[in-house]
Formats: sequence, C-alpha cells, structure tokens
Amino acid sequence: MVKKMYINDSERIDDLNLDGLKIIQNKNHFCFGTDAVLLASYAAIKPNMRVLDLCTGNGIIPILLAAKTPAAHITGIEFFAEHVKMAERSVLLNSLEKKIDFLVGDVKDIRNLVVPGSFEYVTVNPPYKPVLSGYRNRDDMKTAARHEVLCTLDDVVRAARFALKSGGKMAMVHRADRLADVVYAMKSHHIEPKRLTMVSARKEERPKLILIEGISDGKSGLTVTAPLFIYDEEGKYTERFSQIYGKEAQND
Amino acid sequence: MVKKMYINDSERIDDLNLDGLKIIQNKNHFCFGTDAVLLASYAAIKPNMRVLDLCTGNGIIPILLAAKTPAAHITGIEFFAEHVKMAERSVLLNSLEKKIDFLVGDVKDIRNLVVPGSFEYVTVNPPYKPVLSGYRNRDDMKTAARHEVLCTLDDVVRAARFALKSGGKMAMVHRADRLADVVYAMKSHHIEPKRLTMVSARKEERPKLILIEGISDGKSGLTVTAPLFIYDEEGKYTERFSQIYGKEAQND
Repeated sequence: MVKKMYINDSERIDDLNLDGLKIIQNKNHFCFGTDAVLLASYAAIKPNMRVLDLCTGNGIIPILLAAKTPAAHITGIEFFAEHVKMAERSVLLNSLEKKIDFLVGDVKDIRNLVVPGSFEYVTVNPPYKPVLSGYRNRDDMKTAARHEVLCTLDDVVRAARFALKSGGKMAMVHRADRLADVVYAMKSHHIEPKRLTMVSARKEERPKLILIEGISDGKSGLTVTAPLFIYDEEGKYTERFSQIYGKEAQND
Repeated sequence: MVKKMYINDSERIDDLNLDGLKIIQNKNHFCFGTDAVLLASYAAIKPNMRVLDLCTGNGIIPILLAAKTPAAHITGIEFFAEHVKMAERSVLLNSLEKKIDFLVGDVKDIRNLVVPGSFEYVTVNPPYKPVLSGYRNRDDMKTAARHEVLCTLDDVVRAARFALKSGGKMAMVHRADRLADVVYAMKSHHIEPKRLTMVSARKEERPKLILIEGISDGKSGLTVTAPLFIYDEEGKYTERFSQIYGKEAQND
C-alpha cells in the first residue's frame, strides 16, 4: 500500500537500513552510490547548522544528513523538476518534511535562488566527468548526473561560495583524478581546503575518490588524513569503512 | 688526505652509499634528508634531458640525479654562494663536473639566470614553511632552507614555468599540509599536476610528505598513485621504500 501511494511505475523504494529510512529512486536514472554515503558521513555538521546540498538529485544526501547529523535544516537544489518531485516524496515517506526542502533551479543561477551567506555548510556530490566535445543530450538526466553538461566544478564551487557565510564550510566528494581541479576551484573562490581524505579500495591500490572539506575565507594549511581503505587484506570491509557505511553496508 | 683537500673545518663528507658517491655537508647548516632522496627517485628523467634544480643547497639533488638518471646535464641554482662553493667541491669529489654546474642567484631573478624554455625537467625541494611575521634573520642559511624567507612557493613555481619548455615537467617534494598551496601554485602558472604520491610513515598514519609531478601546458587530469608507506607492520622498510631509497637506507 505504501508503495502505491508514493511511487510511479519506473520507480522503486530502497531501504537505507538506517533508522528505517527509505529513498525513492528511478530505475532508469542515476541511483545513489557509496560516494553519497561517504560524503554524508564526512560532512562535519554541527547542531543548528543550515545546510545546502547542491546537485541534490533524488535527495539522498539531505535524507542521510537529516538522519546522521544535528543539522537544523537542509535545502537541496536540483535542476530537474522530475528529480525534485521524487525527492519530495522520499521526504514525505520518511516524515522529514520539517527538516528538508528542495528548490528546482540551476546552480549557475544561485544568486536568484538563495540569500548570500545564509548557510553554514554546503555539501555537493557533483557530476564527475568534464564535458567532452560532441555531447548532444544536454537534458538527459543520466548524462547530467555524470558529466558537467549543466554545471562545471567551477560553477558548483562558485555557488557554494555565494551561499556560505564567511567561515562556513563546504564538503565535496569527487574522483581522485580531479583532485587538482577541485583544489584549484576551491582556492580560486576563496574556499580554503582544510581536510582531505583519499579513498582506495585497498591499501596497495590507487585512490579512486577524494573527500574534501574547505572553509570559506579560511587560512591556508591542509590536514591530509590517513587514507580510507574500503577492504582489508581478507577482502572484508575495514573497521573504519564499516563505521562510516554503517548498516547500509549490508545493502550491497 | 681526500678530506683535507676538499673540506673546511665545519664540514664533513658523507658517503651516499650509491655508486661510491659522496657529499660535503656543513655540520652547522641544513643537511639533506629522506625528502631529497625521494624526490631524486620520483623525477622521471629521460635520456638527454637538461635538468634544472632550484633551491639546490649543497647540491644533493643534482648529485643523486647524475647517479640515478640518464639526464644529459643538471644545473643547480642556489642563493647562497657559500652553499654553491661546497656543492662544487662535492661535484669535483665525485668527478661529475661534466654533468653538473651551479649558478649563484635568486629564483625570483630567474629571467636573468637562464634562457626561457631551455630545460626539459625542473626539480625542487623548496623551503617548506610559510614565513611567519617577525622573522629577522633573512640571511640565516638554516632558516632559509626551512622557511620561505627568500622565496615563496609561488616564486619557485614561476621560476620553473619560465625555465621549462612547453611540455616539460616539474617534480617537487613538499609537506602534505601544503598540498593545496602546491596544486594552486602549479595550476596558476600553467604547470598541470599529473602525478601525485602521498608519503606516510605507516599505512594508518597521516601522510607527511607529497611527491608531485606536473607538465608545463599539460591537460587537466591527475593520477594519484597508491600511497607510499615507509614502514611495514613489523617496523621494517617497505619493499617499495627500499627500492627507492636503495643502499642509502643503510646510512640511517
């Protein structure tokens, strides 16, 4: 019965195995992955913070943050109205409507979406790949989730800078091969990288992902943490990854 | 007898345990460390390359590069004439005078020291710490080796950019907490970071050093290698570190 009320034919409800939380995902579009869970855990959100999640997609990050952190309120911005409609139903399904809302809009248009300096924390799991020449399907949702067709890394960081108060923080998950681009974009927009964690499957392998936190108008000086390994030598989740990934790990 | 010919009272000759190489160091000044050896090993120098080493100090990097790589010629630039005199005696001691020479000068004055675009590779083990207010001993050699009193990170990268031909490479060793500054300086001067290795004492510890290589006018996209750990779980040198550090490891 619950299913019928909340979802359409192309959608499914996934159990997040975290305090009974559920999320509605469209089987034909981008579904959330480990990176979203890592980011939600990495973001050091303190009580009463107002949080903005850019490129929010199906709303997975706001929902995880509402469950895992003491954030006062979380706003998600998403380009596609169809994603937002789905995200809003996930919020209702979890009875989180007092903590989360969404804006349909373009991060490049941030000045018309939010009040400058009105957030203490910004999270973003942006599209990972630069745009190659020859892309046609600019409005294709799956392409837009993976490629910078609708917004570049620079657009995302500029939007974060606009939304953050001075001293506010931003956390991002990205591919390790974009590390230099991420650092450069952040420093260019006066969001100083302060904490960096490299994420590898195993200790002898290259990092695939980075988790990075910066402070708007922060001073130079980066803490690179010990790397995060997902699997130990026996192929099991490491203790540190299990702590982050929590009960969701069973979902794999 | 050899000692008497080459060194002064405050100096000593250290055996590099590498093809019989030796280096003269001044006991009262900065002596080379693991970072210099790591950098000399990291630099991917190909046959016939002309190499420039900035902030060369006692000449340890040119001497290691002459022994470890097929470089055609290595030029070291150093601010303190006293260091250069010592470095030149080390070069004579090792009979490397055909492969290595030194210039006394300020990297900020690079335009008057070298022909633009005349090097295929630049190495630098720069001073690691930013200048705090209140420094007085600008000419103190030990301070200058550790703090950016004589040249900043930006000065060093600008000099490298000037000396490198387009497509030429730069390798640097630096402290991990300066990673964001290093990446930003390189990208600002159109030296694109292409390879990054984090160096930790042990796998569960924070990286202390970074090794980074960039290409002048290179395209965006960074390979973050597997991290380099110095010690294994039994407290012995890891295989990878032993390969890099080679016979010098016995010197510790």
